[in-house]
Amino acid sequence: MKPDKISEAVVRRLPVYLRYLNELSSTDILTVSSQELGRKLDLNPAQIRKDLAYFGDFGRKGVGYNVIYLIEKIRQILQLDEPRHVALVGTGNLGRALCNYNMKENVKIVAVFDSDPSKIGTTMNRLIVQPMDELEQTVREKEISIGIITVPASEAQKVADRFVTAGIRGILNFAPTVLRTPDGVRIHHTDFTADLLSLAYYMDSDDET
Amino acid sequence: MKPDKISEAVVRRLPVYLRYLNELSSTDILTVSSQELGRKLDLNPAQIRKDLAYFGDFGRKGVGYNVIYLIEKIRQILQLDEPRHVALVGTGNLGRALCNYNMKENVKIVAVFDSDPSKIGTTMNRLIVQPMDELEQTVREKEISIGIITVPASEAQKVADRFVTAGIRGILNFAPTVLRTPDGVRIHHTDFTADLLSLAYYMDSDDET
Repeated sequence: MKPDKISEAVVRRLPVYLRYLNELSSTDILTVSSQELGRKLDLNPAQIRKDLAYFGDFGRKGVGYNVIYLIEKIRQILQLDEPRHVALVGTGNLGRALCNYNMKENVKIVAVFDSDPSKIGTTMNRLIVQPMDELEQTVREKEISIGIITVPASEAQKVADRFVTAGIRGILNFAPTVLRTPDGVRIHHTDFTADLLSLAYYMDSDDET
Repeated sequence: MKPDKISEAVVRRLPVYLRYLNELSSTDILTVSSQELGRKLDLNPAQIRKDLAYFGDFGRKGVGYNVIYLIEKIRQILQLDEPRHVALVGTGNLGRALCNYNMKENVKIVAVFDSDPSKIGTTMNRLIVQPMDELEQTVREKEISIGIITVPASEAQKVADRFVTAGIRGILNFAPTVLRTPDGVRIHHTDFTADLLSLAYYMDSDDET
């Protein structure tokens, strides 16, 4: 049903397209050209046309893309029509920030966990923080398919292992460490320290004075 | 002085190599093979060898890479030998999480700002939250070269513009929106909502029952 030849780089750009298309749609803009998309998203229009061509040829020369159709198509490809339930482990500032974030899509944090007894039973964005030993049962009961890790690096692999055991097949890791998961489990790393350090490469020393 | 032919993808991997090499170094491991690096970092050893070859041929067949030398070299390429001062705007949960994070490198948040009067004057990880109108002067006085944006999407472009005006040449944006900056200003987007939504693509619908 889903085309599985789409490269990871393209898949990563789809949510960015989707967000902007949703913005357009909310202001009743019904068509958009690859040039406009490129300008707004800081991407090459040719790249955008290539990306969108994966999903069928629905751009019309001189008219542009149908915004509503594109939204539908991207949501379908990302499988966002079915709700995705997410569990989050680690209720520090970062976990709290993610919980408060309004995803505006069918992907929703429905359970939060922490191993710290002083956190358990407190609420975070209307969810009660649960102890780790309730993870497996909650994943089953709430049909959770994605897990988010916002614990310190030293704890992250343990949490990933628990997620995998519980049947979770997609993990978003914020801990600054590379985690190992078995085949069939997809893991994405959001590594802001790497993002920050790699910025330094592009700083021109001459500008510094 | 710095080779500017290194691709962005390679530059993004360097901090990840660096972090693991630092771990090795702290446990007195002095050589590492591309196989070991690959296993630990979930990367192809051939890719790693190719990446590291950019910086000169210092791996020795059958012996591996000299950890200390590699650390030095990567830090040099990322220009981490000179301290990088960072300003952060937006003192919500995410800003707080970033401030508390120990970077372990020469990149340091030295000033935090918010436009909310109720936040100004409070402290965040030993820094006093400053009003936005002190941004330019503080950037100058504290020789800040990198800015982090952790404000809502609707405010983010305004903050980016202020950073640019203040002379900042590298921006790390956490707001879920694409920002425009003039040529010569480098911007990295850390977009966890896109990371999360793109995960859904890899979820197998059959696993969901």
